[in-house]
Amino acid sequence: MTPAEDAALALHLEVAATPTPGNVDRERDAAGLRFESFQAGAVGALSGLESLADGGSVGTGFEQAVAGMAQATGVNTQFGALLLLAPLVRAAGADQLTPDGASAVVRETTVDDAVSFYRALDHVDVAVPDPPAEWDELDARRGSAAVPAVREQQVTLEDVLARSAPKDLNGAEWTEGFPRTFRTAERITAASGSILDRAASAHLAQLAADPDTLVRTQHGDDVALEVQERAQDLREGQADRASITGFAEDLVDRDINPGTTADILSAGLFVALRRGVRP
Amino acid sequence: MTPAEDAALALHLEVAATPTPGNVDRERDAAGLRFESFQAGAVGALSGLESLADGGSVGTGFEQAVAGMAQATGVNTQFGALLLLAPLVRAAGADQLTPDGASAVVRETTVDDAVSFYRALDHVDVAVPDPPAEWDELDARRGSAAVPAVREQQVTLEDVLARSAPKDLNGAEWTEGFPRTFRTAERITAASGSILDRAASAHLAQLAADPDTLVRTQHGDDVALEVQERAQDLREGQADRASITGFAEDLVDRDINPGTTADILSAGLFVALRRGVRP
Repeated sequence: MTPAEDAALALHLEVAATPTPGNVDRERDAAGLRFESFQAGAVGALSGLESLADGGSVGTGFEQAVAGMAQATGVNTQFGALLLLAPLVRAAGADQLTPDGASAVVRETTVDDAVSFYRALDHVDVAVPDPPAEWDELDARRGSAAVPAVREQQVTLEDVLARSAPKDLNGAEWTEGFPRTFRTAERITAASGSILDRAASAHLAQLAADPDTLVRTQHGDDVALEVQERAQDLREGQADRASITGFAEDLVDRDINPGTTADILSAGLFVALRRGVRP
Repeated sequence: MTPAEDAALALHLEVAATPTPGNVDRERDAAGLRFESFQAGAVGALSGLESLADGGSVGTGFEQAVAGMAQATGVNTQFGALLLLAPLVRAAGADQLTPDGASAVVRETTVDDAVSFYRALDHVDVAVPDPPAEWDELDARRGSAAVPAVREQQVTLEDVLARSAPKDLNGAEWTEGFPRTFRTAERITAASGSILDRAASAHLAQLAADPDTLVRTQHGDDVALEVQERAQDLREGQADRASITGFAEDLVDRDINPGTTADILSAGLFVALRRGVRP
């Protein structure tokens, strides 16, 4: 399997792993999102992922992957996952899929990569945290309307993610060497059972580790902390599957979708696949 | 979406559609086969599907798709589906995805295509019906050991499928202009609801229409007829989902896997996607 194929497979496995509380999985749809939309998104993203693995720029490959996903689904299914996968797939294509290798890709991103990122936002509706006041011109919600400011201020894609990092786990992954991604991969690699069961377990572990960014954005810090604490309780109590499924049902009922945790699971599955874990 | 991407997406949607009695679906694994193996097989097959869409020979593209599938999964998940998709994807790549266009691709197959077909069999364990006595040298179970006889007898891939047609629905599809495939596509296109629900309904319709070849091969004609008749009863009685799910559970418990019906569903989904049905 090529790096691009493994990245697409990681997206397919992520949506199938169950239970992944609050996220679409094999057993339940969630928050207006359907399983088959994720399947289409993973197929549509592939040509952009191939561009990344072949050494194309992070921005261009990411924009192509997002455009392909959006064309295939008409909704936003995997924007955040692709944002994590972009530097990881490029690093894998150069046989450098390590925290250092991925960080080197991040450091090499340019103003053009940032321009492509903002253009990619035109293809989808993405829920993002409010930026600091001095970043208003670069608010992700502006999409390509932010491009003149990006060029004027000479902002690289690393800069964009670094400034979002304090409030955004995906930004933190980009700027800290993808620690949650590699930890997730290690959990999947070390566990036993089917790859989907291992992925579900790694999802709960990440949900317990950090408040989810999308939940914070959509429902506020208190709800994000509540979700994190319930995940911690389930992990510490070695909860049975029925309890975790109950948690999943409750989050779906309340439209609470820990999408950033799912992004990290996709990225972690990709690293695990490259390290030889197979379905 | 390119024809190859739609073919891969058709494979992903086929395994997710539920209930598809006796086959792996979103709600159940079956007969030693797991959901995630089908996901990996669909991703692994893609480069072979791209070769077919780009006008590569049916045999070469099919062999590449099967090899990619087998490398990704280690088991046989979609050999029969790929055998149906191969001429259809090639026809779609030439903008000729009609019964006539697909039949033209079949008629143009060569001895080399037959050689590739037998080589593809080396990658997987495939359950096939016993061939007629005069076909012993060309028994599919011989794999590439049959290649000298293929060359000596100047057998094309159309010949191979035509001779299996009386006992094999996939052979019949190849030689009759893919009537079940296009009928399945029409059912999916005409129905309402989600694409996965429509696919499940089309699966039951095909299960009611013909005794499944794989069930005949693995369990005999009586069991295949029993499955067909139960599908007919459920269709005619406008059965509720719980009844169809009960049928699905029963088939899985008895290791009865209508794999040829699933092959036709994959091919029908591909045609429906090319005609504009979207997830």
